[in-house]
Amino acid sequence: MVDIIESLKAGDKRAAARLITKAENNEKEAFEILKKLYDNTGNAYVIGITGPPGSGKSTLTDKLVKEIRKKYNKKVGIIAVDPTSPFTGGAILGDRIRMQDLSLDEGVFIRSMGTRGHLGGLSKATNYAVKVLDIIGMDYIFIETVGVGQSEVDIVKTADTTVLVMVPGLGDDIQAIKAGIMEIADIFAVNKADRGGTDRLVAEIEMMLDLNPENTPWKPPIVKTSAVSNKGVTELLDAIKTHKKFLKETDLLKTKRISNIETEILKIVKEELMSLITQKENHDKRKRLAVDVYHKKIDPFTAADCLIKIIKGG
Amino acid sequence: MVDIIESLKAGDKRAAARLITKAENNEKEAFEILKKLYDNTGNAYVIGITGPPGSGKSTLTDKLVKEIRKKYNKKVGIIAVDPTSPFTGGAILGDRIRMQDLSLDEGVFIRSMGTRGHLGGLSKATNYAVKVLDIIGMDYIFIETVGVGQSEVDIVKTADTTVLVMVPGLGDDIQAIKAGIMEIADIFAVNKADRGGTDRLVAEIEMMLDLNPENTPWKPPIVKTSAVSNKGVTELLDAIKTHKKFLKETDLLKTKRISNIETEILKIVKEELMSLITQKENHDKRKRLAVDVYHKKIDPFTAADCLIKIIKGG
Repeated sequence: MVDIIESLKAGDKRAAARLITKAENNEKEAFEILKKLYDNTGNAYVIGITGPPGSGKSTLTDKLVKEIRKKYNKKVGIIAVDPTSPFTGGAILGDRIRMQDLSLDEGVFIRSMGTRGHLGGLSKATNYAVKVLDIIGMDYIFIETVGVGQSEVDIVKTADTTVLVMVPGLGDDIQAIKAGIMEIADIFAVNKADRGGTDRLVAEIEMMLDLNPENTPWKPPIVKTSAVSNKGVTELLDAIKTHKKFLKETDLLKTKRISNIETEILKIVKEELMSLITQKENHDKRKRLAVDVYHKKIDPFTAADCLIKIIKGG
Repeated sequence: MVDIIESLKAGDKRAAARLITKAENNEKEAFEILKKLYDNTGNAYVIGITGPPGSGKSTLTDKLVKEIRKKYNKKVGIIAVDPTSPFTGGAILGDRIRMQDLSLDEGVFIRSMGTRGHLGGLSKATNYAVKVLDIIGMDYIFIETVGVGQSEVDIVKTADTTVLVMVPGLGDDIQAIKAGIMEIADIFAVNKADRGGTDRLVAEIEMMLDLNPENTPWKPPIVKTSAVSNKGVTELLDAIKTHKKFLKETDLLKTKRISNIETEILKIVKEELMSLITQKENHDKRKRLAVDVYHKKIDPFTAADCLIKIIKGG
């Protein structure tokens, strides 16, 4: 354990990859290590890139990261949670090949998270992956996730700046899916802006922002991009930097991070408590209660109270 | 409270609607009532209808319900969770008008659940809506939900029979979204089967089913439907009835329901424990711990332990 801690402090990427896998598998050692290295977190700036499938999130991320590398020579981590992302092995072969030059860059660390098979949940696993990349000294961390379900929204909520990528002409169904995610956008990127319908989409977003009853100090800018032809990427990066500056100057970055920490603590609490109930020794008791409820001997609320008593006593 | 209990026992739909709203708002009284009426649950057969937006789930549900009403004169409840469903006010006006004759049928109860603003979660609210419809004597309960996120998968998991509606030609992105939901289908409905690409989609589903390593006693049938022109609806209803018969004869219905009850009890436990932490009197303590973590005075794991001690002591 001392070895891996030293390796992580030295910025070893292979040690980071191993630790993320351990955290994904819910291994206790991973959390012991993170606990010990907690002082080394909090330095990276986290950017969430979300949007519907087919909006070109990965290409946009790819271009943003290349711009950061070229202009500022900062270290960048990418966590791809989108199942259709070329980073995670989805999408078409051409995309995946295009991304390979990024993965050859020494100052870039790419980690894809499967959307299944995480003991303890995807949003938790992503959260720890961010911490690990933070520890090994990444300056910027991008989280790319498809904005469809609650768990994806939860993931992107932990970002400092969230970019919502939209494209003209995706139809109303897609709009309905991502309804819940509109509120968390700090910046809108209207991608594939060379397509028809761009101005209408921009107008729709503007209207929606004007309808927002809350008088917030930050009005999300709308940036037109065409990631494939590298248009608007500089402007989008500038918008991200402006938002970062705004958060720092208004102290909202601190507020946001403290609120995220509170959510994180509650998640750990929830999980520890649930692990108390789902312990093997309680398995039979749980099963028996469920059978009793099935046979209407007791109701589920009373059954739940029985389990709570076990936890409190344990 | 005695009044509402008697009304529910008598099958009063307005009392049912009120109770569902109370449960959605997480009012304590709702759970007191459900607790008292728990003996009256377990009689309805629950059918989940899920699939991507635009697959025609609502029209299919509409036709299935009409067939049940006409042929068997059984009472049917519909819970629509799909934001694009005409039942919930989404979709185009034509669809909504078409559904109205169902809502005029005395033996039908339709309830739409918004996908936002449920204290305690959508899957919990849906769960209670099913119980309420069960209590007022519905023989069949349909849950229509769009299969995109984890919470939607959770909802449909509580059904006795789950129908996954697919359509030819929706493209790969949609396929990726619903990947997690393929496993829970008891029956596949290939809707809009008058379109090109139907046979290929059927072949793809068959291939996927053949690849399934588990040797399960039930092989999901694939039914071709064209809900708009009422084709294949009888066959689909027959498939549902065959599955129901299979579950009853093999005792798998009991196994499935006991397992669902176990999940439900755990959900209640989780929530009660969380409500202990999020109580007002613990608010300051929680905030202070988050601030301490932000300033690296402690790590989040240690902060979580502090909160757990509070719960155990409380």
